[in-house]
Amino acid sequence: MPEGIKDKVAIIGMGCTRFGELWNQSPEDLMIDAFKEAIEDAGIEKKDIQAAWQGGPEFTSVNIGDSALPLSQALKLPFIPVTKVENMCASGSEAIRGACYAIASGACDIAMALGIEKLKDTGYGGLPEFSHWAVIGTKHRIIAANQTAPGMYAMLATRYFNRYGIGPEEGKRMLATVSAKSHHNGALNPKAHLRREVTVEQIMNAPIVAWPLGLFDCCGVSDGAAAAILCRADMAKDFRPDPVYVKALQIAATSGEEEMFNDFDYTHVECTTRAGARAYEEAGIKNPRDEISMAEVHDCFSITEAVTMEDLQFSPRGKVKDDIMGGRFNLDGAQPIQPDGGLKCFGHPVGASGIRMVYEMYLQLQGRADKRQIKDPKYGLTHNLGGIPYRAIVSVIIVGL
Amino acid sequence: MPEGIKDKVAIIGMGCTRFGELWNQSPEDLMIDAFKEAIEDAGIEKKDIQAAWQGGPEFTSVNIGDSALPLSQALKLPFIPVTKVENMCASGSEAIRGACYAIASGACDIAMALGIEKLKDTGYGGLPEFSHWAVIGTKHRIIAANQTAPGMYAMLATRYFNRYGIGPEEGKRMLATVSAKSHHNGALNPKAHLRREVTVEQIMNAPIVAWPLGLFDCCGVSDGAAAAILCRADMAKDFRPDPVYVKALQIAATSGEEEMFNDFDYTHVECTTRAGARAYEEAGIKNPRDEISMAEVHDCFSITEAVTMEDLQFSPRGKVKDDIMGGRFNLDGAQPIQPDGGLKCFGHPVGASGIRMVYEMYLQLQGRADKRQIKDPKYGLTHNLGGIPYRAIVSVIIVGL
Repeated sequence: MPEGIKDKVAIIGMGCTRFGELWNQSPEDLMIDAFKEAIEDAGIEKKDIQAAWQGGPEFTSVNIGDSALPLSQALKLPFIPVTKVENMCASGSEAIRGACYAIASGACDIAMALGIEKLKDTGYGGLPEFSHWAVIGTKHRIIAANQTAPGMYAMLATRYFNRYGIGPEEGKRMLATVSAKSHHNGALNPKAHLRREVTVEQIMNAPIVAWPLGLFDCCGVSDGAAAAILCRADMAKDFRPDPVYVKALQIAATSGEEEMFNDFDYTHVECTTRAGARAYEEAGIKNPRDEISMAEVHDCFSITEAVTMEDLQFSPRGKVKDDIMGGRFNLDGAQPIQPDGGLKCFGHPVGASGIRMVYEMYLQLQGRADKRQIKDPKYGLTHNLGGIPYRAIVSVIIVGL
Repeated sequence: MPEGIKDKVAIIGMGCTRFGELWNQSPEDLMIDAFKEAIEDAGIEKKDIQAAWQGGPEFTSVNIGDSALPLSQALKLPFIPVTKVENMCASGSEAIRGACYAIASGACDIAMALGIEKLKDTGYGGLPEFSHWAVIGTKHRIIAANQTAPGMYAMLATRYFNRYGIGPEEGKRMLATVSAKSHHNGALNPKAHLRREVTVEQIMNAPIVAWPLGLFDCCGVSDGAAAAILCRADMAKDFRPDPVYVKALQIAATSGEEEMFNDFDYTHVECTTRAGARAYEEAGIKNPRDEISMAEVHDCFSITEAVTMEDLQFSPRGKVKDDIMGGRFNLDGAQPIQPDGGLKCFGHPVGASGIRMVYEMYLQLQGRADKRQIKDPKYGLTHNLGGIPYRAIVSVIIVGL
């Protein structure tokens, strides 16, 4: 077992733009805004950054170019290394991982991770690429061509309901309760894309996208950018009294084979289970349900959040409904989830989401989350998922003071 | 100045397919072939690999997908992290960098870097993307739309000739001598794409692509894959008696601003100069002309190799002609360059090239380069360039026993 990177790297500054339909801001504007907030928060200057990672898949127009030069050009970062990393919707956390490894390896002392997306200009501009997804191998091509993201996640819900004996109305209500909680939190967040409370009844009666997922079970499609400044842990207190340390960073990716064509139960995401377990081992966490104070998970759909609670060991298998309906994950519950509104309401500018999640954990740990503040959090967890239930890449990051 | 990664990481296995027009092999076949050679060379099994990086820009069909899942799927790598890195033609060396940092950070003990490209199936299938290159900012869009790669590199030659008083015939002959040397070396390499000797006269009389660059001044457009297995330096001798150590790994990227719109002289590539100088500092090399035994540089065009000799301090500024014509860079010269034939003749499957370069240095250091063997090399250098002269990302890696 490798030693891992626990407590080798600290976050000393972060920035995040408002997410939403940002028609009047260019990708350059968004990158500059997130960057400026981050370096001002860290109290550093541009020249202090020794390397940078840009997260963003090529789903969308802004991440075209096959390099991270859009980042170095927008910020005028002269001659430092910039690297583009891609793992679909988990690209933002890959950018943080690149910076963490560079720092922990000794290659640099201070590094930046930045994620960016302009989805609204093009309406998932890269959509034709979805049909390319699986150009390697006939079987994958067939699957990619026949299914949409809501459709693939809807099956997670129908299988889950079936396996655990949850009726249609009962299941819809459980999922609606997940989304209502995120709408409540998003309404408290001035940077969120969707800022209004929605009732469980409104959610249950909204138009269906792919049953049981209705309009309010699906996350926002947003423009936005987020950035993090990281440094060697032993330098962090030179910059601020309250740096946030990386306690664990783990990724798991399916090869597709073992889940897709054999015995995948379609009631969980195996990569989440694996990445979570590894992260707990790295951070020294024995009981995630009690020890993880709060989390931002990849709630692309309400059912994704629900099964993630089980995959991350926050709820026992098959029992997440009790925790959802009991309010465990509410802002005033025992283990708040999506305090910033999540992908659901903060929004989902793909390349930025993994960094936006860490941004909220960072603010919460420092007591800077304003109306969303959670009392005395110890550990925050982020869960960033790329792909679909049986063909996924999942990053789990645990941070603490 | 950060401490760097010198002597923290070793290469214990490498693999490389034949490069060329590989119509009868799928991308999966190529990845599997490079992978199998690499793990057999390292004497490890698939289960020993703890993380992997896939290098490849989305110029071409095989690197679509916005993730490294094509890699984990082809090799059936279950649940380990896989990450896609992109920096245009320098993507292969980015994959090695990802693995190096992960190992040196403690995140893993054994990691893999793999680069892959199928260019021939689609004829630079992603070509429409070139017109996207610079969707950020009007000025870049104009430039990208108006210039081809040969055209942009041809200007490097015409400016260089002008600045140093080299006449047209004299300049053409200098460049032809560069290519003739690579054709000689490529003919000795059973895996090379272009395996025949070509005379200086043939090269000078070949059809012009963009003056002064003719057909034989341009590198091969190829299919292929290459892979490296890396591990913690302190474990390396458990696997083989002759591991190759990473002595330096540095990258420089232009922001575009400072070179493109001000005083770029267009007779060199500033990123190469910067990345090279940093790499020499990291490796503790004072006099690169004498201390670097051999190199694989990014000879996308003959002029690129020529100016790179100056940027890497192998030749004094403005004097590379003397070294080229004097045979310094020949296989039997004082400082052999492109012993495997280079991009010119080994070929240029974009995502694989940065790793292929390291493959040759690795074989040479271990005395396994057969008819191309250089006598007692101490340090080998690779130079992997993405982009164009004034908008580039350059990786320099130095390896040694």
